[in-house]
Amino acid sequence: MSSILNGKHIQVSVFGQSHSAAIGAVIDGLPAGFQLDEAEISAFMARRAPGKAKFATSRKEADTPVVLSGLLDGVTCGAPIGVMIQNTNTRSGDYSNLHTTPRPSHSDYAAAVRYGGFNDIAGGGHFSGRLTAPLCYAGAICLQILKQKGIEIRAHIYSIGDVLDTPFDPVHIQNDNIAEKAFPVLSDGQGEKMQAVIESARLDADSVGGVVECAVTGVKAGFGDPMFDGVENQLARNLFAIPALKGLEFGSGFAGAKKRGSENNDPFTVDADGNIVTKKNDHGGILGGITSGMPIVFRAAFKPTPSIGKVQQSVSTEKKTVEELQITGRHDPCIVPRAVPVVEAVTAITILDLLGGK
Amino acid sequence: MSSILNGKHIQVSVFGQSHSAAIGAVIDGLPAGFQLDEAEISAFMARRAPGKAKFATSRKEADTPVVLSGLLDGVTCGAPIGVMIQNTNTRSGDYSNLHTTPRPSHSDYAAAVRYGGFNDIAGGGHFSGRLTAPLCYAGAICLQILKQKGIEIRAHIYSIGDVLDTPFDPVHIQNDNIAEKAFPVLSDGQGEKMQAVIESARLDADSVGGVVECAVTGVKAGFGDPMFDGVENQLARNLFAIPALKGLEFGSGFAGAKKRGSENNDPFTVDADGNIVTKKNDHGGILGGITSGMPIVFRAAFKPTPSIGKVQQSVSTEKKTVEELQITGRHDPCIVPRAVPVVEAVTAITILDLLGGK
Amino acid sequence: MSSILNGKHIQVSVFGQSHSAAIGAVIDGLPAGFQLDEAEISAFMARRAPGKAKFATSRKEADTPVVLSGLLDGVTCGAPIGVMIQNTNTRSGDYSNLHTTPRPSHSDYAAAVRYGGFNDIAGGGHFSGRLTAPLCYAGAICLQILKQKGIEIRAHIYSIGDVLDTPFDPVHIQNDNIAEKAFPVLSDGQGEKMQAVIESARLDADSVGGVVECAVTGVKAGFGDPMFDGVENQLARNLFAIPALKGLEFGSGFAGAKKRGSENNDPFTVDADGNIVTKKNDHGGILGGITSGMPIVFRAAFKPTPSIGKVQQSVSTEKKTVEELQITGRHDPCIVPRAVPVVEAVTAITILDLLGGK
Amino acid sequence: MSSILNGKHIQVSVFGQSHSAAIGAVIDGLPAGFQLDEAEISAFMARRAPGKAKFATSRKEADTPVVLSGLLDGVTCGAPIGVMIQNTNTRSGDYSNLHTTPRPSHSDYAAAVRYGGFNDIAGGGHFSGRLTAPLCYAGAICLQILKQKGIEIRAHIYSIGDVLDTPFDPVHIQNDNIAEKAFPVLSDGQGEKMQAVIESARLDADSVGGVVECAVTGVKAGFGDPMFDGVENQLARNLFAIPALKGLEFGSGFAGAKKRGSENNDPFTVDADGNIVTKKNDHGGILGGITSGMPIVFRAAFKPTPSIGKVQQSVSTEKKTVEELQITGRHDPCIVPRAVPVVEAVTAITILDLLGGK
Repeated sequence: MSSILNGKHIQVSVFGQSHSAAIGAVIDGLPAGFQLDEAEISAFMARRAPGKAKFATSRKEADTPVVLSGLLDGVTCGAPIGVMIQNTNTRSGDYSNLHTTPRPSHSDYAAAVRYGGFNDIAGGGHFSGRLTAPLCYAGAICLQILKQKGIEIRAHIYSIGDVLDTPFDPVHIQNDNIAEKAFPVLSDGQGEKMQAVIESARLDADSVGGVVECAVTGVKAGFGDPMFDGVENQLARNLFAIPALKGLEFGSGFAGAKKRGSENNDPFTVDADGNIVTKKNDHGGILGGITSGMPIVFRAAFKPTPSIGKVQQSVSTEKKTVEELQITGRHDPCIVPRAVPVVEAVTAITILDLLGGK
Repeated sequence: MSSILNGKHIQVSVFGQSHSAAIGAVIDGLPAGFQLDEAEISAFMARRAPGKAKFATSRKEADTPVVLSGLLDGVTCGAPIGVMIQNTNTRSGDYSNLHTTPRPSHSDYAAAVRYGGFNDIAGGGHFSGRLTAPLCYAGAICLQILKQKGIEIRAHIYSIGDVLDTPFDPVHIQNDNIAEKAFPVLSDGQGEKMQAVIESARLDADSVGGVVECAVTGVKAGFGDPMFDGVENQLARNLFAIPALKGLEFGSGFAGAKKRGSENNDPFTVDADGNIVTKKNDHGGILGGITSGMPIVFRAAFKPTPSIGKVQQSVSTEKKTVEELQITGRHDPCIVPRAVPVVEAVTAITILDLLGGK
Repeated sequence: MSSILNGKHIQVSVFGQSHSAAIGAVIDGLPAGFQLDEAEISAFMARRAPGKAKFATSRKEADTPVVLSGLLDGVTCGAPIGVMIQNTNTRSGDYSNLHTTPRPSHSDYAAAVRYGGFNDIAGGGHFSGRLTAPLCYAGAICLQILKQKGIEIRAHIYSIGDVLDTPFDPVHIQNDNIAEKAFPVLSDGQGEKMQAVIESARLDADSVGGVVECAVTGVKAGFGDPMFDGVENQLARNLFAIPALKGLEFGSGFAGAKKRGSENNDPFTVDADGNIVTKKNDHGGILGGITSGMPIVFRAAFKPTPSIGKVQQSVSTEKKTVEELQITGRHDPCIVPRAVPVVEAVTAITILDLLGGK
Repeated sequence: MSSILNGKHIQVSVFGQSHSAAIGAVIDGLPAGFQLDEAEISAFMARRAPGKAKFATSRKEADTPVVLSGLLDGVTCGAPIGVMIQNTNTRSGDYSNLHTTPRPSHSDYAAAVRYGGFNDIAGGGHFSGRLTAPLCYAGAICLQILKQKGIEIRAHIYSIGDVLDTPFDPVHIQNDNIAEKAFPVLSDGQGEKMQAVIESARLDADSVGGVVECAVTGVKAGFGDPMFDGVENQLARNLFAIPALKGLEFGSGFAGAKKRGSENNDPFTVDADGNIVTKKNDHGGILGGITSGMPIVFRAAFKPTPSIGKVQQSVSTEKKTVEELQITGRHDPCIVPRAVPVVEAVTAITILDLLGGK
């Protein structure tokens, strides 16, 4: 079940390799009768697309989704949506030596063992970040359905290296049109500094990691379950599918673990409309696995992309000798900016599933 | 599917509330013919049991698991193991006012909405940390099965408040008999300081959080899958079932997100036995969702237990007014020490499932 | 996942062996706030209980379900219901020779291979029909929930050997209080003949099979899905869990396969209330995997119970020689009458899950 | 999860409608390193393809599968196989009146309610038998993998209307190259009579149903599980996805329900090679949900295709009036011959999954 986001109501089966004929997905379980806004989907996917900025790979793809089924005149018909994105700009020659000389901290070695060496190594194969494009297509649809229900999902770059953006106010999530920005941060000043950090890494043939913060507003209290089907469990299961994601924290998360209960606990109060709310939101909108009605807030840590131009130490898996490795090909010095819409997309699919898929 | 750890091969269905007649589990999918070491199971469960130390709740339970099915003379017969632990020491009178005055940052409010107010509030009901006892029983069995395969799982208190233990060396996990310690840390000196932090919180009728670090050694390279069934995904899905767990990071995790690729990448090398290994282990033993053969290392952040004796601000959900709340009853000032075996248990079940359940 | 009825919303994890300390189940996903009618549950379970009539095993069990969790004053609280039925009347000595001399057409041989000989052979172990008692408990609850929604599930003995009962009128299901009859048939005259067939088998130390017909009324059109999650798929997956069930047909089933389309097709019409209905119901209430609004009707074929007193040919699995086998112990000459409530129970769980678990 | 064959190890996500741009599937979980025999796949798919004979629809499609991902030089690489079949010959104009005048016993009415009228009605949309083509592609691969393990799956037309083929000998399954026959029966004489029955129905603008019998040889004893994950459960869940399948019986099935235990029980014996086998095979190779080592044998009943040319009675769902309906378009008078490879395909996927997906 490796490549299926297998929700109770919604399933997204992803296929493709970086350099296969196409990548794509089958999206099952969406409500029938929903009119897609295709321009909005394209705009959403453009946020993830490569080649738009100096901090991203120079590989350019039209990345136009071709819908094979599931829509009638742009309206969901209840049948699974089959969608493919053709790979038009493949350069598999770049990757020939990686079969026996795995890239440090990339999937190459583990995948070679897992698949007996038969895995497609070109461009990372099925492990490529490119596989998040069909997830963005699915997520873009879910975002539109959620929006009609008053639910919005916004993410921003929380940090790049040591540079921090203004965090979300977890009680009143800022709506600063982050999604429309070329570099999705709340503080454009901090964004400038982050871009300098990325550019510096690029000039060093290196890469740098960062953190994405995401917030979901508009979900009422009472969705989720204790234990294994809690909201954290479901989000975690799906979000860890995003390549390079290595950490996840909800609400005050790791910082909260340093606190006392009297600090971390969120006092209840009653707002002007008579709703029961909390005065602050260290619980990240989830209590006992169930939504509290407050914004769901989490942060996801992305490791620096392992594909760097610097000479690195690897091994020959055939000769069992230490080898120097220099990777050519096209790589992002920082994948965090492009990961922002991917986090939103996976969150959107998960939240729509949480709400019963409709 | 809220209370089922629903692995591909192993399923653990947990039942019970803090003050119901019994709690327990049905454990399905274990291999037949395995002779349990019951003394070892008891020793493992004793690590989680309450009442053994000043930092834990004063509630004492024999916590003796009664096996209802699945064993013949202590040997698994292939049928599901039904196990129950009777609740002998219930004091449900302590909790009467919580039905309309939810405890801040506890599950009370979210659960009341989710279950229309019909949920069992006594002692946290099904949301109680007590429900981790049957998980420990299941995990203890899995640990024994894994041990026969050369796989060991060890956890320690990584931090309490601001006090840090010596971290695991992620390449050569220390075997310092942590499991046998009353306070499971690598550095007993730091452990003393942690206990002082906990005692201080207790005296203030408060609580404090912390972090548990866990390592799995002996898992060969090549287990897991990319995307949604990766090792991180499976561990995350199951670990977030542990009450109060709000953050999870693998390998260098959030710290890695601050690094450059050239720092965070783990160079390959060949060890004395000719095995391909990495010189350090910032990847936490998982690459592309698949085990690399290095120790699997992760940290889990636990919020301070929300049940504190201090007066707090809550609301009357009936009158929609702000109310003061003072919780009586018995509570741990810090649940982190007792969470250590729970993390090991859930990890053991997940890893055994990853290996095919046998 | 062998012993979990793993619905989208409702899960029932069954445990126990015929002669273990107890059998039981964990029932997860039921709506909170439902007041159980315990007398009705007992009456339902009594229909399956052994020892009540001459055609059943002479083993008598109180079969009283002990609820361990999930109820507060008889009302569901949203937490899983843990229920056990103690095995008070065990005679495991009867079964000693079956370990190496498997009973023909019983699970003994296949189970011994599957579980490496470690399976519990006494009374059929986990394969015993006795394991349907906890399913009946779960089903009895679901039936009560469904009844409140106007949905009723009725089954009767369709045939024993060659003797046929009056079949259901699939358009207007008869309500003849079948459930209250000691021998659940529509035509008591045919029931007499069936009982004679069973008694004749009993006197010959033999057994006889039969067919159960079941109907679900009150389910509106539009539930289910095409392909793998159709109503037939879900019912089939769950019903084949009932021991001895070897065939299943919906609507006209195997007889319909002999017909022409013009005969088998069900013309639509409009009833007096303006509802779209079909004039007959060869489709069994399911079209394209989705309910049509007509009664769901199916028949399940039960093989004659393989445990017979007659001398049979078996083998010694150790010596690899042909051996005579004579089974002692207590066995039903016909399990079909007791299977009737089990079919209703499994159907009830499946239909409640189909409707979203509430 | 409607359109996902969701095995433990193998998943097949089917997409497409009869007249969408393409149909296809994502096939996940196949072992890496398997060299496909594409000619054999084509030959297999040709058995299902329309237009080859007078008893099939006159619609002709090249039905050439286009592989989008998952293969490198015809060898599985471990990544999901994305495959599509373009719909080149669409005539959606034929179906316009069916939106409000549903075809009797077709999915039209139930689907319109399920999907709020937004479902694609053209050619049956997602409910079309055409969706079995990608299942055949997936099944053809699984058949090749199974063949390497000595496992073969063969099906034949067991009956058309009242005409019966020679049944399989369930102990020694005949290998009469059925798959190579244009009309897959054991007895060509009976096949002639069946074709006459079909031709007669066609001349009457009618259709006729039938039964497919399938046998799996080479599966060793000990695969499967009791209760909900038994072999019957898994096959049933998947096989009922085939359009028009309304009944399923294993071994002696409904006929066995008429027998006594002494007749239906299969005595064990030891064959010339020292294997434990049964002298006959009324149990259909499955005991207690687990394989016995004998051939797995089952029969599937197909209703006559509901799309017939004869005038039928329907309703106007808008006006709530009874209406006459005459269907135009292209339809098979009997889908049973084309269902034979589909049954084999779904069985192959299920059996490969049962064996662990490899």
